[in-house]
Amino acid sequence: MPSVAEANASAYGPTRTTVTTPNTLTAEEEDKTDRYMRACLYLCIGMIYLRENPLLREPLSTKHLKARLLGHWGSDAGQVFTWIHMNRLIKKYDLNSLFISGPGHGAPAVLSNSYLEGVYSEVYPDITEDVGGMQRFFKQFSFPGGIGSHATPETPGSLHEGGELGYSISHAFGTVFDHPDLISLTMVGDGESETGPLATSWHSTKFLNPVTDGAVLPVLHLNGYKINNPTILARVSHEEIEALFIGYGWKPYFVEGEDLSTMHQAMAATLEQCVTEIKDIQKKARDSGVPFRPRWPMIVLRSPKGWTAPRSVDDHYLEGFWRAHQVPIPDVATNPKHLEVLEKWMRSYEPEKLFTKEGKLIPELKELVPPKPLRLSENPIANAGTRRALHLPDFRKYAFKNITPGVSNLGAMANMACWLRDVVAKNQTNFRLFGPDETESNKLGEVYKAGQKVWMGDYLPEDADGGNLTFNGRVMEMLSEHTVEGWLEGYILSGRYGLLNSYEPFIHIIDSMVGQHCKWIEKALEVEWRNKIPSLNILLTATVWRQDHNGFTHQDPGFLDVVANKSPEVVRIYLPPDGNCLLSVMNHTLASSNYVNVIVADKQDHLQFLEMDEAIAHCTKGLGIWEWASIRPFEEPDVVMAGCGDVVTAEALAATALLHEHLPELNIRFVNVVDLFKLISHEDHPHGLKDKEWKSIFTDDKPIIFNFHSYAWLVHRFTYKRPGAAKHLHVRGYKEKGNIDTPLELAIRNQTDRYTLAMDAIDRLPKLGNRGSMVRQQLKDLQIKAEQEAFENGIDPEYIRKWSWPYAKSKGEVEVLASASGQGEVGFTE
Amino acid sequence: MPSVAEANASAYGPTRTTVTTPNTLTAEEEDKTDRYMRACLYLCIGMIYLRENPLLREPLSTKHLKARLLGHWGSDAGQVFTWIHMNRLIKKYDLNSLFISGPGHGAPAVLSNSYLEGVYSEVYPDITEDVGGMQRFFKQFSFPGGIGSHATPETPGSLHEGGELGYSISHAFGTVFDHPDLISLTMVGDGESETGPLATSWHSTKFLNPVTDGAVLPVLHLNGYKINNPTILARVSHEEIEALFIGYGWKPYFVEGEDLSTMHQAMAATLEQCVTEIKDIQKKARDSGVPFRPRWPMIVLRSPKGWTAPRSVDDHYLEGFWRAHQVPIPDVATNPKHLEVLEKWMRSYEPEKLFTKEGKLIPELKELVPPKPLRLSENPIANAGTRRALHLPDFRKYAFKNITPGVSNLGAMANMACWLRDVVAKNQTNFRLFGPDETESNKLGEVYKAGQKVWMGDYLPEDADGGNLTFNGRVMEMLSEHTVEGWLEGYILSGRYGLLNSYEPFIHIIDSMVGQHCKWIEKALEVEWRNKIPSLNILLTATVWRQDHNGFTHQDPGFLDVVANKSPEVVRIYLPPDGNCLLSVMNHTLASSNYVNVIVADKQDHLQFLEMDEAIAHCTKGLGIWEWASIRPFEEPDVVMAGCGDVVTAEALAATALLHEHLPELNIRFVNVVDLFKLISHEDHPHGLKDKEWKSIFTDDKPIIFNFHSYAWLVHRFTYKRPGAAKHLHVRGYKEKGNIDTPLELAIRNQTDRYTLAMDAIDRLPKLGNRGSMVRQQLKDLQIKAEQEAFENGIDPEYIRKWSWPYAKSKGEVEVLASASGQGEVGFTE
Repeated sequence: MPSVAEANASAYGPTRTTVTTPNTLTAEEEDKTDRYMRACLYLCIGMIYLRENPLLREPLSTKHLKARLLGHWGSDAGQVFTWIHMNRLIKKYDLNSLFISGPGHGAPAVLSNSYLEGVYSEVYPDITEDVGGMQRFFKQFSFPGGIGSHATPETPGSLHEGGELGYSISHAFGTVFDHPDLISLTMVGDGESETGPLATSWHSTKFLNPVTDGAVLPVLHLNGYKINNPTILARVSHEEIEALFIGYGWKPYFVEGEDLSTMHQAMAATLEQCVTEIKDIQKKARDSGVPFRPRWPMIVLRSPKGWTAPRSVDDHYLEGFWRAHQVPIPDVATNPKHLEVLEKWMRSYEPEKLFTKEGKLIPELKELVPPKPLRLSENPIANAGTRRALHLPDFRKYAFKNITPGVSNLGAMANMACWLRDVVAKNQTNFRLFGPDETESNKLGEVYKAGQKVWMGDYLPEDADGGNLTFNGRVMEMLSEHTVEGWLEGYILSGRYGLLNSYEPFIHIIDSMVGQHCKWIEKALEVEWRNKIPSLNILLTATVWRQDHNGFTHQDPGFLDVVANKSPEVVRIYLPPDGNCLLSVMNHTLASSNYVNVIVADKQDHLQFLEMDEAIAHCTKGLGIWEWASIRPFEEPDVVMAGCGDVVTAEALAATALLHEHLPELNIRFVNVVDLFKLISHEDHPHGLKDKEWKSIFTDDKPIIFNFHSYAWLVHRFTYKRPGAAKHLHVRGYKEKGNIDTPLELAIRNQTDRYTLAMDAIDRLPKLGNRGSMVRQQLKDLQIKAEQEAFENGIDPEYIRKWSWPYAKSKGEVEVLASASGQGEVGFTE
Repeated sequence: MPSVAEANASAYGPTRTTVTTPNTLTAEEEDKTDRYMRACLYLCIGMIYLRENPLLREPLSTKHLKARLLGHWGSDAGQVFTWIHMNRLIKKYDLNSLFISGPGHGAPAVLSNSYLEGVYSEVYPDITEDVGGMQRFFKQFSFPGGIGSHATPETPGSLHEGGELGYSISHAFGTVFDHPDLISLTMVGDGESETGPLATSWHSTKFLNPVTDGAVLPVLHLNGYKINNPTILARVSHEEIEALFIGYGWKPYFVEGEDLSTMHQAMAATLEQCVTEIKDIQKKARDSGVPFRPRWPMIVLRSPKGWTAPRSVDDHYLEGFWRAHQVPIPDVATNPKHLEVLEKWMRSYEPEKLFTKEGKLIPELKELVPPKPLRLSENPIANAGTRRALHLPDFRKYAFKNITPGVSNLGAMANMACWLRDVVAKNQTNFRLFGPDETESNKLGEVYKAGQKVWMGDYLPEDADGGNLTFNGRVMEMLSEHTVEGWLEGYILSGRYGLLNSYEPFIHIIDSMVGQHCKWIEKALEVEWRNKIPSLNILLTATVWRQDHNGFTHQDPGFLDVVANKSPEVVRIYLPPDGNCLLSVMNHTLASSNYVNVIVADKQDHLQFLEMDEAIAHCTKGLGIWEWASIRPFEEPDVVMAGCGDVVTAEALAATALLHEHLPELNIRFVNVVDLFKLISHEDHPHGLKDKEWKSIFTDDKPIIFNFHSYAWLVHRFTYKRPGAAKHLHVRGYKEKGNIDTPLELAIRNQTDRYTLAMDAIDRLPKLGNRGSMVRQQLKDLQIKAEQEAFENGIDPEYIRKWSWPYAKSKGEVEVLASASGQGEVGFTE
């Protein structure tokens, strides 16, 4: 069988090495580096196979093997190789560096380094640097009650798991924004490189300021294979791969081969070249104070998959082939010949020469570990350890004042943007606003006054005409939800604060990313030494109810369903009904930690309801009876009308007004829900109401007409256990129906409009008898008329203002109370 | 203000044009082309603004304007320009061509061309080619009751809407696979180019065979701006953008500028160069019969955003700036000066010289339209019009035979793969299997015998060692769920058949794509002239219950929630419990049209239950009582045990066995659900059971212990209205809890294990009294013991086999019936 080098040469010619400085390492340095690498790799293979006899001081037998072999070997060697060559430069240049493992399923590589650096034993005192500790270290890997086979939150020095692939580069950029001294060394798998999110994230350099930000140093690992296929980037010409990265705006350096001695020298020289180039770029920019976009250096590392494993077993390729991806020789427990192969292979690393009698790395190799606190596996940035407080201006000062409930028609989002502007102003180095080219459209443009949009691309004369572009900005916009979400995740995982704003319909693009982040937080809660990280805040607007003009493709409020499936310890969902509630909710969420907060709010002018004091009280409770909007709130209600979401709450209020106009004898209770998880049982989510509280608000025997922002099912799944809900709770929400409509038509078509809701109530009040039927017919006629008007005119800009609310109030029947409501004892739960 | 060319020159130097053949067009041709373009653009602007006076035969006044101005102008000119230059080549070379509009929100560009080609009037007879027809054509655009502002399914010639951005290139490749004569001309927006899915889809050339496939001709439109930001690709150096596309494996040609005459000549020459180059490549490959990967040609078109609009209005840039993105001058109704600007601009196209008195395009321009059936807007491929039947082998022949229910332990997926192999074999030019590098891992490798994996990248010697790579394959694998899904969508939208296989946890990556496809199908159902397209089939495996070893990041069964929100006319979800059911379901779904079918099935060996006849009967009903698994099925049950999903059904059966062993007096009914939508009300989904049917299966007064594959909420949201469900239905399913476990531990932790289910039943049977409490304690002890065993050994390979099922059967208490069940009248609903 041809060697890996011969095989590659047959397709591509000789290996390439861009930097060919001879003897970067002395012979002694090279030898030590090589032995250190072998120590790491020995640990990697040990983790995958052994539960006993960790240093092979007895002949290997099946009883030493784990019963179930798990873990990934394929990328370990390339990752170990990169990590240990960085160690030398950390020591030489006092670097502040993170290691981000894109192929996080090669966790043995990062775990073994963390163990040899001593950090593992510091955070897990049971895993000592001796034979017993090594045994426990091996056994716990991918074992019940132990740790995962990815770079899970238990991994010291890691903030990127790499379970779902595609986010290493965007995470890395998130870590270095506003961390000018940080270099995030980022291994990118060639499998991962095929994903869309990774493919576009290379463009992140167009948003990196060499004066105020640190640097990402990517090592694209042309490992050659995925699970069962070659990778694209490993199978194209040298010309193409070089052009690709020049095209992306990088300066690629190549380190290719399999001969360890040659590779050590090449990697040492190349990595040093990259680090010094980064420092030179930064010095130039910082000395002059003039930012520019350089061609940042990167490394293309081509090394065999499963490097240092046997080239073949039983006439099948292993090293340099996809068979080395996971457990390289899976049948060692049943095939004695293969057990011999494994033993011989493990012994080839010469563990007896690498570890002391006690089982600790020998002192002359231990010297290669960087000193505290520079070890890659202990960098506090990977644990939000450098987090500073976020300064929030008093949101009360931005309140809408003297509003007439249900009549004042104002832009909640644009108003909140004033507060957000001052959040940006007060936190110029640890808060950023992220979005996929929608910040202005989402009425948040006011923030540009405190921080414009970062842009390191070229400039044209028209940029002066309202471009709001700058080198030194605080708003990050790229038309890739994946990239901005990845940046934000990296930014908060490294201890800073941020907010993503996005159109509601397209947030599904990052369903999986948000899900993975939820899992990270939840798992991290169980890891004692993990610090809290700022919450991931997602503000959704351009909501379904205002997507009549963009049509069906832009109507999808279902992100809430995805989020609601995640752990209740982690997820929070808010639907503020108006501007003051939006301010209260935004303040609450930005100040929080370890959550994924989703806020859904309309960006257009809409009706306002609550003064700031009332809003705070209402949001603090999370839901409540609006007495001012109810008809005879202190009497037993005939029906409960409820809204959750801004536009749908306004429709529910209009329905209440219609009912009151036509059926003044009805007692109507009006409820608004801000905090969606209030609806669920308190056994299922810490915010959930107790049944007693539920009953005090919704009753257990009166019809509830509930108008919901999203798909109605979500309310049903939350409330199926509530007393009386099966019989009395009637939910309206969005349904998939493909037509373009005016806003009112959209509501009518989805049966979330005032007329349908009022008719719903009548349908559930048989005591109204014929009178009910007559009113119902009147409402039906009004509905048909409204729809026709909308259709004929093609517009209904006035329809919101035409609402007859507050009908009851104008008749003096209800006094507006100072506080929105007073029942229950629910509080603004964390 | 500098012109657009001057502005660009200030940053990039003079415009670039790769092909500089002089006078490709005669003066007359150029003039006609230019006038045809002006006719199109006049229609575009008319659609956005006018409801009356379509040809400006009266002075423009506000009464002619639509009350609400909507639509996108920014990319219209560039798209129109490209389309009409293609027309010339279609005529010259008899091309079979599709136009795929990446910036589909520039729908006026495609609509105007379709109208001028006469196709629009053919499919919508009311929209005639005269003044009245033009008026209706204008008015209906983005108007209530009319059509959308994107290239919606109502658009003739379109199969790509472009509402959510990122899929134009992958869709385009999907259309040309196995369509050797097709050239899909694909406009790619520079905004869209920033998305991840688009960024990686350029690599699709590594999977395109020039012998058997057609070609994609991308026109990357450097339009310069998104909604409110410059685009990345429009603001990097010439060197970078050229390198980028060479790196992606393309041969980029440049057409840049704003002067119409120069641009017409450049585009005519360049487009012709590309078309002839494509034909040369194909000829070379087809003559020799040897496929190869060429550098396919593409065009980089840099033209001003909003091209041909006024350069500025009121000292603000319009043409060549983001202000031209949507409605270029939005305040014409209230600003008389701006109304004048608009009128002058519209008249600058000289509509009076372009259209006859009757309002039809003048004959000398009409001549530029390609003859039937070559018009871009009528290509039947965009309407699945070339669809051939799919030949399905008889799945019954692949059945597992002589199984012992609950004892036979076999690999359902690997067995189904034999049938799938023969599906591939019988449909070598109209069926493909797609996946992100998981086909082998998903136990479907058997299909390689009928069609290996397409690979147009370089080959290495080790590929001979089980690589299964070929130029002429039927399996498409790239580590990008987005790309393979996009290919599949394009493939079925153009009338062919396919199946996507994927790990369950990572299918969330394409939540939004699948949602958009559902919307397309649903809308297309309303469009009379649209043909049915083959269903989008998604097979999910590596399911949550077997993701103990990959851990928490790989556990997410929530795709079903996303799909369930989509229109009931479109979505179908199946969870076959065993191998014969899997065959039956796969056959049903592949044969169907216009659905999104999601099938969830375990790929490991698992228990088998039904003979093929029984499986067909069971799947045809969608759910049913398993009498053979019930205890005294013909008596009134004390409790109903139910399972939906393979692994969870096996646990529910084991629970039934445990209950019977310990409490033999209990009558237990066992129900399995294959078709998830059976659970929902028939008013909400065509598959839904009527309440009477529900009651006949589940009862309305007995405890139901329901073990569900996914998050339990989904069952609750489906069943909240069912009689008795609120009180009696108890659902177990997956919960987010971050730990690694053995399979049994995973089930125990999630409370979907046999012990918990049996205890659940006892908890709901108070009549058991003390005896129940004692048995409950015994079960609890068994559960603890099982968990400890799993923990201590790190493995539980035998735990499935250890199940005591079929306990009742072995005692001769229940006779196995020929048919799985007999109740109800539900049928295999479409």
